[in-house]
Amino acid sequence: MRFTYECCDCGNVFETGEVIYQCPTCAKLNDGTSFPKGNLIVKLNKEDLKTLAQKEHVTMYDFFPYEVPTPSAYPVGGTPLAEPVRLAKKYGIKNLSCKLDSTLPSGSFKDRASQLIVGQALAHGENRIALASTGNAGAAMSCAGAAYGLEIILFVPASAPINKLMQSVLYGATVVPVKGTYDDAFALSIAYTERFGGINRNTAYNPMTIEGKKSISIELFEQMGRKVPDVVYVPVGDGCIYAGVFKGFYDLKEAGLIEKMPHIICVQSKQSNAISKAWKTGDFSCIEAATTRADSISVESPANGRMAVRYINECEGWATEVDDSEILDAQLELTREAGIFVEPAAACAWAGVVKDSKMLIEKFGKDVSVCTLLTGTGFKDMAVFTGRVSIPEAIENSKEAVIKRFEK
Amino acid sequence: MRFTYECCDCGNVFETGEVIYQCPTCAKLNDGTSFPKGNLIVKLNKEDLKTLAQKEHVTMYDFFPYEVPTPSAYPVGGTPLAEPVRLAKKYGIKNLSCKLDSTLPSGSFKDRASQLIVGQALAHGENRIALASTGNAGAAMSCAGAAYGLEIILFVPASAPINKLMQSVLYGATVVPVKGTYDDAFALSIAYTERFGGINRNTAYNPMTIEGKKSISIELFEQMGRKVPDVVYVPVGDGCIYAGVFKGFYDLKEAGLIEKMPHIICVQSKQSNAISKAWKTGDFSCIEAATTRADSISVESPANGRMAVRYINECEGWATEVDDSEILDAQLELTREAGIFVEPAAACAWAGVVKDSKMLIEKFGKDVSVCTLLTGTGFKDMAVFTGRVSIPEAIENSKEAVIKRFEK
Repeated sequence: MRFTYECCDCGNVFETGEVIYQCPTCAKLNDGTSFPKGNLIVKLNKEDLKTLAQKEHVTMYDFFPYEVPTPSAYPVGGTPLAEPVRLAKKYGIKNLSCKLDSTLPSGSFKDRASQLIVGQALAHGENRIALASTGNAGAAMSCAGAAYGLEIILFVPASAPINKLMQSVLYGATVVPVKGTYDDAFALSIAYTERFGGINRNTAYNPMTIEGKKSISIELFEQMGRKVPDVVYVPVGDGCIYAGVFKGFYDLKEAGLIEKMPHIICVQSKQSNAISKAWKTGDFSCIEAATTRADSISVESPANGRMAVRYINECEGWATEVDDSEILDAQLELTREAGIFVEPAAACAWAGVVKDSKMLIEKFGKDVSVCTLLTGTGFKDMAVFTGRVSIPEAIENSKEAVIKRFEK
Repeated sequence: MRFTYECCDCGNVFETGEVIYQCPTCAKLNDGTSFPKGNLIVKLNKEDLKTLAQKEHVTMYDFFPYEVPTPSAYPVGGTPLAEPVRLAKKYGIKNLSCKLDSTLPSGSFKDRASQLIVGQALAHGENRIALASTGNAGAAMSCAGAAYGLEIILFVPASAPINKLMQSVLYGATVVPVKGTYDDAFALSIAYTERFGGINRNTAYNPMTIEGKKSISIELFEQMGRKVPDVVYVPVGDGCIYAGVFKGFYDLKEAGLIEKMPHIICVQSKQSNAISKAWKTGDFSCIEAATTRADSISVESPANGRMAVRYINECEGWATEVDDSEILDAQLELTREAGIFVEPAAACAWAGVVKDSKMLIEKFGKDVSVCTLLTGTGFKDMAVFTGRVSIPEAIENSKEAVIKRFEK
């Protein structure tokens, strides 16, 4: 599908023969104190889009600006739409669903972005991809690299959860832990591609990361029988997933396949609320210190914050903030009362639904359809359970021990 | 769908008003020295089966003896069929696929059995399910229990991998670690249900575990465009997964949907080769000590060994044995060269394909279609990487450090 780029901030349009990352005019203004400017939006050709309205079914690949070769080599998409019946009853939301992107190949939503980046790299004859990541994007890109035989150079803060780091090493990526923050790793990955070449896959910096993530919305549309939910809850750190979810629904609307966008809700931890704060106050300055335990959404300078705030307004969404304790409770609630095992960042979205549940019914009625986007498997960070959950003591190997344990 | 039970060993037929587990006549002969007798095979009503041949598409639920209420509450099935393009090229098997059951809700194939057990329990008015497990079956049943609000009582050897134990605790099961082996936990779980009631879900002991596992074959049939592979590789411990895979294809054949069964290959570790040995020699005595690192398939007295051996012959399959070192190499090869991250037991199946690859092409030609069943995610046992894979040292946070690291 043909496309151009449009700067999210100044609206300038760019043609697409070469790989470009940001609007040079706006990016020049970035000084690290407020949300970065200059991110590009992929604008699909309107004529091409309109042809999709005739199709009986659409897939994510119909909406991608690059072709993905042999998608089954790295099978992204087709994740279950779970109906957590017990939670639906508990909170009185009859039409409640959870999109289990925790079941994607590398265990997180980030596989959606990495899939399109493979298409971008191969279309431009590149077989080397560099990126910075707090863990999940790195594991996803490394997984894709293993599937297609691409070289992945991954800069990560040395403090990232061990399972996430280990995964990327296992996939065969060149992993470079950095004695610094995610922002530091981000800068070093750009230094790498500027000096040594290759595609840079940094989230939001490369517009194809947002474009890949939109696939979830197209999938939801088909999975729900060519309808979309009334409200979608998204866990938010740098705003890139939020923008991806928005973009998928936006393209469906542009294609004439849906009439109305869902309300997309930005859920953040109070300990990492840069985008929520900006949406509420109009103040786009970075926050001092993001300290949430949900490492995947712990962000001081949200790389895609400006676009996310704009999109919250455009789809008549809102921002909901939750405490870290609510996130950890939500994680256990999903596991114990729905059999859904996700990492804290994913549970943040569910904590938002819990917090808003009464208001949702008041605002939209009891038939409101609510979808919660669950972005990463619980296995990604087992250390979070230390001190919260423990394994019971062993019993002796005898029938008497069993009777003693259970006799009332 | 209507059904009866047939004893695998004596052929006696049993009606199905009540929950029954084993043929009482044959089970009485079991003394613990040779593979247990008396397992029951679910025989679907032939008339009911024949009606399925008229359907444009079939699902696992068409073939189940019990109804599963609200399947989306615990979304089992629909796992990706990956095409590992690099490995296909490396081993010269053009039509190579991997069934990623590692992406099921609790991270293993065992979800397939637990789903049908939920249907069985609810049909018989039971809300309590007890079982023994080395880890994966327990996590799967606990996951299902959380989704449906059922009480799960789980007996596990205290030595099971920590992530597997932790998962069951997180799902809210009553976890009872036992100072003993899996066989000890098996006996105690039966002592529990005999005394306190509830459904016993022990693998193979409850025939519905095999019946649930057959769903993978029905899914494969539809996923491959109403065809089945020529050869299917299955990792084997107690023989229950093998029997489930066989049973799914068998029912498809009985329904008139396929003409020929695939060759189903039983892959075992040399350090846990009870079924392979029995198939090769006719000696059904238990092995002394199963010592494979692939904990999910480490079995001395295979609970479903007799049925598995019979089925290997019926589908013209065979047994392939691999070293533990080949299993661990296969695990890394899948991760690094296909982006597929699985636990050692699952990698055992791939090690079998690697070992047989030349023979497969000689025997069936270069167009042979080979499917590898990958049964559990790599996250289930991260300790297996200790000493094999390590995370590189961190670099300083500077552009110079990046240049020094990559300049040739």
